[in-house]
Amino acid sequence: MMAYRLGEIVERFGGELVGDADIRVRQVAPLSIAQAEHISFLANPKYRRQLLDTRAGAVILGTAERESTTLPRILCDNPYAYFAKVSALLNPPHVEPAGIHPTAVIDATAVVSGSASIGAFAFVGKGARVGEHAVIGAGCHLGDGVEVGEDSLLYPQVVVYQGCIIGQRAILHSGVVIGADGFGLANENGRWLKVPQIGRVVIGDDVEIGANTTVDRGALDDTVIEDGVKLDNQIQVAHNVHIGAHTAMAGCVGVAGSARIGRQCTVGGGAVILGHLEIADRVHVSAGTLITKSIRKPGEYTSVMPFSTHNDWLKNASHLRHLDKMAEKLAELERKIDELERNKP
Amino acid sequence: MMAYRLGEIVERFGGELVGDADIRVRQVAPLSIAQAEHISFLANPKYRRQLLDTRAGAVILGTAERESTTLPRILCDNPYAYFAKVSALLNPPHVEPAGIHPTAVIDATAVVSGSASIGAFAFVGKGARVGEHAVIGAGCHLGDGVEVGEDSLLYPQVVVYQGCIIGQRAILHSGVVIGADGFGLANENGRWLKVPQIGRVVIGDDVEIGANTTVDRGALDDTVIEDGVKLDNQIQVAHNVHIGAHTAMAGCVGVAGSARIGRQCTVGGGAVILGHLEIADRVHVSAGTLITKSIRKPGEYTSVMPFSTHNDWLKNASHLRHLDKMAEKLAELERKIDELERNKP
Amino acid sequence: MMAYRLGEIVERFGGELVGDADIRVRQVAPLSIAQAEHISFLANPKYRRQLLDTRAGAVILGTAERESTTLPRILCDNPYAYFAKVSALLNPPHVEPAGIHPTAVIDATAVVSGSASIGAFAFVGKGARVGEHAVIGAGCHLGDGVEVGEDSLLYPQVVVYQGCIIGQRAILHSGVVIGADGFGLANENGRWLKVPQIGRVVIGDDVEIGANTTVDRGALDDTVIEDGVKLDNQIQVAHNVHIGAHTAMAGCVGVAGSARIGRQCTVGGGAVILGHLEIADRVHVSAGTLITKSIRKPGEYTSVMPFSTHNDWLKNASHLRHLDKMAEKLAELERKIDELERNKP
Repeated sequence: MMAYRLGEIVERFGGELVGDADIRVRQVAPLSIAQAEHISFLANPKYRRQLLDTRAGAVILGTAERESTTLPRILCDNPYAYFAKVSALLNPPHVEPAGIHPTAVIDATAVVSGSASIGAFAFVGKGARVGEHAVIGAGCHLGDGVEVGEDSLLYPQVVVYQGCIIGQRAILHSGVVIGADGFGLANENGRWLKVPQIGRVVIGDDVEIGANTTVDRGALDDTVIEDGVKLDNQIQVAHNVHIGAHTAMAGCVGVAGSARIGRQCTVGGGAVILGHLEIADRVHVSAGTLITKSIRKPGEYTSVMPFSTHNDWLKNASHLRHLDKMAEKLAELERKIDELERNKP
Repeated sequence: MMAYRLGEIVERFGGELVGDADIRVRQVAPLSIAQAEHISFLANPKYRRQLLDTRAGAVILGTAERESTTLPRILCDNPYAYFAKVSALLNPPHVEPAGIHPTAVIDATAVVSGSASIGAFAFVGKGARVGEHAVIGAGCHLGDGVEVGEDSLLYPQVVVYQGCIIGQRAILHSGVVIGADGFGLANENGRWLKVPQIGRVVIGDDVEIGANTTVDRGALDDTVIEDGVKLDNQIQVAHNVHIGAHTAMAGCVGVAGSARIGRQCTVGGGAVILGHLEIADRVHVSAGTLITKSIRKPGEYTSVMPFSTHNDWLKNASHLRHLDKMAEKLAELERKIDELERNKP
Repeated sequence: MMAYRLGEIVERFGGELVGDADIRVRQVAPLSIAQAEHISFLANPKYRRQLLDTRAGAVILGTAERESTTLPRILCDNPYAYFAKVSALLNPPHVEPAGIHPTAVIDATAVVSGSASIGAFAFVGKGARVGEHAVIGAGCHLGDGVEVGEDSLLYPQVVVYQGCIIGQRAILHSGVVIGADGFGLANENGRWLKVPQIGRVVIGDDVEIGANTTVDRGALDDTVIEDGVKLDNQIQVAHNVHIGAHTAMAGCVGVAGSARIGRQCTVGGGAVILGHLEIADRVHVSAGTLITKSIRKPGEYTSVMPFSTHNDWLKNASHLRHLDKMAEKLAELERKIDELERNKP
């Protein structure tokens, strides 16, 4: 594992170094377990007292924390982002050697860059294209006409249905399914007719998609994931959804058909966004929240029931079914009191 | 891509043609982007004004919309279902050539129809049966004794555990797992003993199951999915669940063990249905709703907390934990007012 | 299928036999469909009347049910646990023959026990280790340095990313993904920087993980699943989560990053546990509940909105957005009534 001098790090990423520029660090670690060869960071002032006990060789701090330690330190505006860059430097991605595993099945009409890596048991369909330095993991399946951009990384057992497009520097984790049919059904006399799903999924650059997440192809138009979107695991993105650039969604989120979500939004874990609505840029949806109509203004939105002990919940929950009566009773008491007040002696 | 005359379409599917029967359409498209070679549709009168601007070559309309446009039009009772049929005509399913890919592993005792297609890296276990014209996608796994009916289509990387039965014309999307063990555990002194799951999954005809959905095998009896059921992506169906014919469930639904769900129900995205309960035919469960007990009557059922800005939510949510006290206070005020009224001068 | 004498069963598992020790049973079945060759059980006294009609050859009962039937019966303290053991005896796990399928790809530096079974199209990476009698199903992927303990069973198409550790007697169902990157992102000027995820997933002994469940690798430290944990299908366990021994979670649960969950907890289906919190031992979270802060005491916790017909819900739900005003109004009425009472004639 390579070591870097603090001086080199500050040369690359900026910030102000306080302390010995020749100290070398090999790895990142949390303050609590860091040793001399580690560089750590403090992003949240409420953990400041961990600085007192840490054995880290160096720390990355906000500029306001200059005096919070005597350790060698790098002061910067955004310590967590700085830490991300240092960690990426110290933990470069594993590079797969270029070439096609002998067990892979590549259609004769597919175009695979010479610098790409295709794993064991991978399948690349007719006319599919795999860009420079892309890695298609073992057991991945690229349908006919799929395009995977340069430097993209598909972990083992990703499936991309025919015709879908994945941009550059994508990271798709195992079990991801891109381009399965959207849930398009027409009801005729109590039975469901399938509506062919003839759109694609089009994914921009710098998108990461977590394990077992699914993104359905569009019914008529495409489903679109713009640049820089980050989706966690087990998310379901339905047909014709449009997710704006640099939006991030935590695990288990569901987004229903034709929802149009803005840029730089965040969606908390387990939230559900219903279909055929629009969400503005920079909207933040809390975990577990159900969004049932369009949101026009940036801000944070929430709809969760606070938890309590089951016994307390039992006492309170029964009233939820009678709030309307409670409101009526309140209005009636108001009227009676008004009358009593008018008749006051 | 084939083109069809409007006259031919009306001959096949009925409806009343207003306009030139010789106009040809090649593809379906939404009103907003359709061109002369496209046929479009209007299912919801609230989008009627899109008819004014569309460049579609023809449109499918409800009988009440006869005068809403001068375009060539097909009038019918159920425009969306009609559209589904026209789209299926214009977009026939891709036909996989019959035959077994040389990399597939087929047990010698399996019976694969000569007209079936078995993809690369597929595995077909002992005594498994694959019906006429069925397609087993690349990397699929059929356990011992599995049966897949005629004309069924398994997209790449579907797993069917041993002994499970899939009917005719099924569509199973990538990442589907049929027949994994149900969550059967007995607690003994704080530890869990596994209860063997010896039932199967039995799936009827014309069932579609979305990407990464899981249907567990029964503990003792079978888990049953009746004809015409449509399951979207990322759904979990637990052991011994019974889903009645032509019921449809949107993405991310969870159904707990031994729930018995009627026919022609719909379940909205992210809803959870608890176990050991019964739901009548034609029950509609709203998205995000938790069903905690049996439902005996058809109708729509809901249990969601409306969302609001986080600040408004903060103000209101604290009271949810004190509804019981609020109700008590209300009752007390009622008593006091009654007393005051009795003592009125 | 083997048959066992009731006498043999009691010798193995204890309990008191009432009736003929030479009666043989071949299989387990529910009371309602059991025949003479079946042994059944009654775990819940509320189904006692099923004992009257059953045709089971023998039954397993709690000691209090001694007189509830004249059938041959085994009396014990925990009939469901006893039943689990009998069923495991009558339904021994399918044993895969040892050996490596000729299509599997095993790195030369991997160490695979001679008694292990490696299925078709499986991939075992550099330096990976597979223990005695372990079964790696068809199409599984073990990354570099992965360890799978003795007697563990991976069903087809499980993916384990590099460096992750799985203990003994694990059962991992199809579609499980262990060790994908946690959702670690730092925001810099509206764009997301990836934080390398350099921890592992470490899974203890006797853990079962359901189909399509995902467990992410740690960001810096490891994600830890202790001994005897049971996870159902479609669960998402985020980075650096710690799940205590013998905790069980039902389907579709989401656990956010760095949550620390105690021992012998249960979590109901569809519940969501937010990150960076601690849950004590023996906490039971109800289905559909959102846990937003630490829980220090054992017990049952709930946060669900009761469902109702959609029309009733419409009437009540509007008030949820105005509870704060309702509380204010109530306080105001209280003041007015106090005043009226003070002024009473």
